[in-house]
Amino acid sequence: MSRTRHTIARLNDLSHEEFARVCGPVFEGSPWIAAEAAAQRPFADFDVLLRALCDCARSSTPERQLELIRAHPDLAGRLTLTAESKREQSSAGLDALTQEEMELFRFRNESYRNRFGFPFVICARLNKKDAILAAFDRRLTHSRDEEIRVALEEIFKIAALRLRDIVI
Amino acid sequence: MSRTRHTIARLNDLSHEEFARVCGPVFEGSPWIAAEAAAQRPFADFDVLLRALCDCARSSTPERQLELIRAHPDLAGRLTLTAESKREQSSAGLDALTQEEMELFRFRNESYRNRFGFPFVICARLNKKDAILAAFDRRLTHSRDEEIRVALEEIFKIAALRLRDIVI
Repeated sequence: MSRTRHTIARLNDLSHEEFARVCGPVFEGSPWIAAEAAAQRPFADFDVLLRALCDCARSSTPERQLELIRAHPDLAGRLTLTAESKREQSSAGLDALTQEEMELFRFRNESYRNRFGFPFVICARLNKKDAILAAFDRRLTHSRDEEIRVALEEIFKIAALRLRDIVI
Repeated sequence: MSRTRHTIARLNDLSHEEFARVCGPVFEGSPWIAAEAAAQRPFADFDVLLRALCDCARSSTPERQLELIRAHPDLAGRLTLTAESKREQSSAGLDALTQEEMELFRFRNESYRNRFGFPFVICARLNKKDAILAAFDRRLTHSRDEEIRVALEEIFKIAALRLRDIVI
């Protein structure tokens, strides 16, 4: 992940393509969100930019929202990750699990995917592994519509923290 | 709100009292959280500090969690606000409501408080007023336990953004 940080003024001045490239990774595997928000520049400050990005996701079709959720990797479940996901999962301690813990995650990932048809999304930078396991069990009792909403809210938390890494 | 930003190294070096004063406002009306986290210094980076603060709230008693939720003001409902709340509410457009919109908020604030016994908490910096009104109606259908969890998660989003304003 590039650790170069930009001012809002600089992000406003970038070409459409450059803006989409820089802000694209704020949403996992979903560069269309930053590309769509690029047309709304200039942004007055960090909050306005963050809300514009989140609103693009919020106001997109249910199909695109599902694609956004499905672009996320299973927790502790994949060998190759985006630089952003790798950092987030290791921040939550998911890169150093025992064999037994890996089984716990694998079982929950499968149960969750089987029930809802999309991966379990949680902001790993705000939760350690025990909190994540507890959230898995609680959220498995939700309805699918409720979980789509929760997943999007978690994605907005992830986005706020990823955007912070990009904007000075 | 002070716009002075500190490095993590500087926050680690502050006296216990200074750290609590600087980081206290990350949680509305709940300075005990930063005071508790101060003892866990040094923090390696922004994420570790943010998670330590949120974990203090997460691991506190149900009574203290309710106090934390209750420390939040009604949206569009109070004449005097903390500097942080004022900025957040104005960011969502809640400082420029028509008389009719104010009534919509007042009615929902009352319904929500009557049902759950605490104020409706949402991260205003991530939502505009229409999204907030829609969330009110949806969340009124939740159980009280579910709403306590949702309120805490919203408080963590608010905290992430407030901490960003403090840390370089």
